[in-house]
Amino acid sequence: MALNQSNKIKQLVAEQKQGFSLAQTFYKDIDIYATEISNIFLKHWLFAGHVSQIPIAGDYFTFEFDTESVIVLRTTAGEIKAHINVCRHRGSKICLEQSGTQKSLTCPYHAWNYNLDGELISARNMPNDFELSDNGLHKVNVELLGGLIFVCLSENPPSVASLRQDLNSTFELFGMHSMKLAEKKSYRIPANWKLAVENYQECYHCAPSHQEFAQVHAMAKPPKMFQKAKENFSQANQGNPKFTEFNRYFDLAEEGQEGYQYDRNPLLRNALSGSLGGKTVAPLLGTLQGYDGGASELMIGPLSYFLIYDDHMIGYRFLPISADECICDVFWFVNESAVQGKDYQLEQLTWLWDVTTQADKTIIRNNQKGVDSRFYQSGRLSEMERFQQSFLNWYLQALVK
Amino acid sequence: MALNQSNKIKQLVAEQKQGFSLAQTFYKDIDIYATEISNIFLKHWLFAGHVSQIPIAGDYFTFEFDTESVIVLRTTAGEIKAHINVCRHRGSKICLEQSGTQKSLTCPYHAWNYNLDGELISARNMPNDFELSDNGLHKVNVELLGGLIFVCLSENPPSVASLRQDLNSTFELFGMHSMKLAEKKSYRIPANWKLAVENYQECYHCAPSHQEFAQVHAMAKPPKMFQKAKENFSQANQGNPKFTEFNRYFDLAEEGQEGYQYDRNPLLRNALSGSLGGKTVAPLLGTLQGYDGGASELMIGPLSYFLIYDDHMIGYRFLPISADECICDVFWFVNESAVQGKDYQLEQLTWLWDVTTQADKTIIRNNQKGVDSRFYQSGRLSEMERFQQSFLNWYLQALVK
Amino acid sequence: MALNQSNKIKQLVAEQKQGFSLAQTFYKDIDIYATEISNIFLKHWLFAGHVSQIPIAGDYFTFEFDTESVIVLRTTAGEIKAHINVCRHRGSKICLEQSGTQKSLTCPYHAWNYNLDGELISARNMPNDFELSDNGLHKVNVELLGGLIFVCLSENPPSVASLRQDLNSTFELFGMHSMKLAEKKSYRIPANWKLAVENYQECYHCAPSHQEFAQVHAMAKPPKMFQKAKENFSQANQGNPKFTEFNRYFDLAEEGQEGYQYDRNPLLRNALSGSLGGKTVAPLLGTLQGYDGGASELMIGPLSYFLIYDDHMIGYRFLPISADECICDVFWFVNESAVQGKDYQLEQLTWLWDVTTQADKTIIRNNQKGVDSRFYQSGRLSEMERFQQSFLNWYLQALVK
Repeated sequence: MALNQSNKIKQLVAEQKQGFSLAQTFYKDIDIYATEISNIFLKHWLFAGHVSQIPIAGDYFTFEFDTESVIVLRTTAGEIKAHINVCRHRGSKICLEQSGTQKSLTCPYHAWNYNLDGELISARNMPNDFELSDNGLHKVNVELLGGLIFVCLSENPPSVASLRQDLNSTFELFGMHSMKLAEKKSYRIPANWKLAVENYQECYHCAPSHQEFAQVHAMAKPPKMFQKAKENFSQANQGNPKFTEFNRYFDLAEEGQEGYQYDRNPLLRNALSGSLGGKTVAPLLGTLQGYDGGASELMIGPLSYFLIYDDHMIGYRFLPISADECICDVFWFVNESAVQGKDYQLEQLTWLWDVTTQADKTIIRNNQKGVDSRFYQSGRLSEMERFQQSFLNWYLQALVK
Repeated sequence: MALNQSNKIKQLVAEQKQGFSLAQTFYKDIDIYATEISNIFLKHWLFAGHVSQIPIAGDYFTFEFDTESVIVLRTTAGEIKAHINVCRHRGSKICLEQSGTQKSLTCPYHAWNYNLDGELISARNMPNDFELSDNGLHKVNVELLGGLIFVCLSENPPSVASLRQDLNSTFELFGMHSMKLAEKKSYRIPANWKLAVENYQECYHCAPSHQEFAQVHAMAKPPKMFQKAKENFSQANQGNPKFTEFNRYFDLAEEGQEGYQYDRNPLLRNALSGSLGGKTVAPLLGTLQGYDGGASELMIGPLSYFLIYDDHMIGYRFLPISADECICDVFWFVNESAVQGKDYQLEQLTWLWDVTTQADKTIIRNNQKGVDSRFYQSGRLSEMERFQQSFLNWYLQALVK
Repeated sequence: MALNQSNKIKQLVAEQKQGFSLAQTFYKDIDIYATEISNIFLKHWLFAGHVSQIPIAGDYFTFEFDTESVIVLRTTAGEIKAHINVCRHRGSKICLEQSGTQKSLTCPYHAWNYNLDGELISARNMPNDFELSDNGLHKVNVELLGGLIFVCLSENPPSVASLRQDLNSTFELFGMHSMKLAEKKSYRIPANWKLAVENYQECYHCAPSHQEFAQVHAMAKPPKMFQKAKENFSQANQGNPKFTEFNRYFDLAEEGQEGYQYDRNPLLRNALSGSLGGKTVAPLLGTLQGYDGGASELMIGPLSYFLIYDDHMIGYRFLPISADECICDVFWFVNESAVQGKDYQLEQLTWLWDVTTQADKTIIRNNQKGVDSRFYQSGRLSEMERFQQSFLNWYLQALVK
């Protein structure tokens, strides 16, 4: 980026006031957006999917944002690998479907053929000095974290060593390796991606906007009431590994380490799960022996969020399409042994977070409309928006790194 | 705006030749467009609606252009006020519907609550040093002119003192305070807003393009024929206050005063109103005692136009959506005591100006297509485009003010 | 164009490696695109249509790309002329339909009237010093080449003298003056125009992507096999004027002369035409006496391509709509004496190149998607992409001329 663009961003970051919503420019400027892609989306670990989606060698799915497309697949040796979905010849997209099974990767344009490890195996009629070995697909880094597949498009990704050490027992507890993806829905939102992420990070709007959620989750209550309920809940479950918190999120992440968070919060009254009336909707996860009336928040890297009830897990992912449009993908996971139609009904399983995300889509769109006005100005954040403030602190630093 | 952008605009204005259509740049350049918004649409009085649309405390409608949205409402005290439709917290749009009735203004996102005067009344969970009184909605200036509601988004609007003095008797004559809005239609046009405004300001195209209009209005005739008819009409009605002209439009406006115009023109043959065959379509307006076969042109500020027949009034408003798209809103007003279905039929009332505006939409779109060509060049204006020339003179000065 | 933009383009051209696909910038940058329009599309001869489309005085069709529109018509004197489709008054488009018949050209806005030669004949109510003779339509240069109508929007077009001298006998041979347009289809492609043109210029993708084409054309075979077949075919037809090659295409064109190419290639097995199973689909063209199992490639100027079977001719034209969208127009010509439904069936005639172009549309769109990635990099071209390389050499030079 040109020096004056870099200086412009530094100045904007320096001028942004703590405790206030972002200045309009951060939601509109194309240089800001380009910097977000390079400094955030291309540098951090992003949630791509789950191992259960590609059980057999040759199974693949694509992971896409902005102008980028990644092929995530299982190799002949059974490993999970990821490659940039761009042919090294003249650049055609190789895998055109969102998922499928292939013995090898053949570009549909000129039939250049790559093996599942991304190596170029054959290319017809090339000059004599052409080397197959120089023309493999661009490699994308992969980490498996509790069966969740994370990718990083940078050659030097942040370390996940701390994250693994702290969260491995959590992954075990909920049997995250042995979940299966029951449903995935995509919500296209005509707004800057940060408005969607910020919306996810505060429950200040839960009471006015999400009555379905608020009827089940203590988190939607005023801060003092929620803190009290949370303390009681933790004390009653002292020593239970489900209740061990890890707070390395956003600006609390160690230098060089990817951030993460784990936390357990009480549900309301007799609720057992995140559903209509708090009723259970699927068999217990992992080795859990019963319901404790709580739900865990899990954050892996700065952009991937999970909500773990005792009987199912929700994955939340926000990806930019352009500066003024984003996509919110919601994933519903259940115990891999659960049988649809018998052990769980898709409609019951997905109801709460579908209705909640539909409402958020409307909220976020109308937030963008107001932010677009010349009269919009940064507004004061409430005490229920501290987690969002932590995201903003991290975000501003990431822009100028 | 950066100095070099400001200089670029000054140079373009200096280069524009009198008596010729605008150079292409004025219809395409995004810096020109930004300057138009700030120097014209944010500085002048704009027609928002009529008091009859919000008769009861809490009634509101929104007024929107480009990225801006204004709430126009009647307060508890019965006053008409206007506020920027952007929450002072994180910027959400507050009123999402085009009109409605509210006891107070509650942001749908986090439930910040404003009274109808725009003062912030409650906001949950805010830090101790947060002051409600610092966080009211941005105020928009309002003027009531003959029951017509005008808004100005500038803190220092032009004066309407001269306008009031000259036009008050006209407002009275046609009973403009006691009209009601019978119908409103919006026409979205894929063209720069100026092409739509210029189209409204000349009747050179009326004969070839609007046979329905031309059959009823003398104005569509060649200039000499029209002037003759107008002189005869004026002389026959000497002393009648309906025939007192005021020409303070565009470049004829006094410094610091908003411009305006009032003029009365003859209809053709036995036509009594602007309708199919010139037939009457509604009860007489105000205190009028009969039809005189004329129609008045009323212009309030540089961007709001009214056409007053003896039995109904048309309002015309052009608003930019972006540099290459605009909206034309047409309003049909009748005497407030008239009953739809009994005293007037909506289809008869709206026919002429609906068919005319539909035709204009096509004309203007095709004008834009030609103006987009690299081969477009400013063309000579005819003698029937002098009012348009006056608009262009004013427009060019407004750009560099 | 500003000096620094011109320098930027020079540097990009200098950095582009021979034998590799273009760098991403050439497909995305708006300054590059603007230069392409001015240096390529506004300077060269473009295929607009065929004389058979406008047999009678007053017949016209429009030819459009980017923001430009040209009226191509037959004058009262029977000549083919072309005018810019922009009124000299305020710039409206004049001919709104794609084709039609008019005694004169009347602007639909204010009725300025031009004769078929483009001279302004009447304009109402103009000032006294207005000169009709100064306000004719902008003239577009026209050349008739074998009944094909070419237009050039530059005042100083390249010469077609060499082209005429070499190709006149070919035009005669296939009776190109006495063809008729049997069908035209337009394929809108969400990709930069060069990706579409490059796709047309190489048959490296024919075998994997176009089985319908590959079953009939030797050109889809590997280079050595094709060269062998072509040599045999040429030797067997020595002295036949159909087999005289002219290679003045792209970078092989003489200075100041428009480029061109003519070449004849063998079909496969017993194929006689470009169709399902290689069957004949229409009566023989021109003065041909029989089928020889070949097809000719004809290129007139750098942007217009023709494929001549013994019984029909295909025209191919790629035109930019914007930097990231283009249109591919395909024309099917037959002997003018052929009667539809009797001598040829439209579905059989158009099948091969419709199915092939539909497939290309998909290929090209997916090529653009990959080229949009930050990970796209120029890739090595194969031996079957030499003609494309010749286009790229010419293209890069045209950018900096």
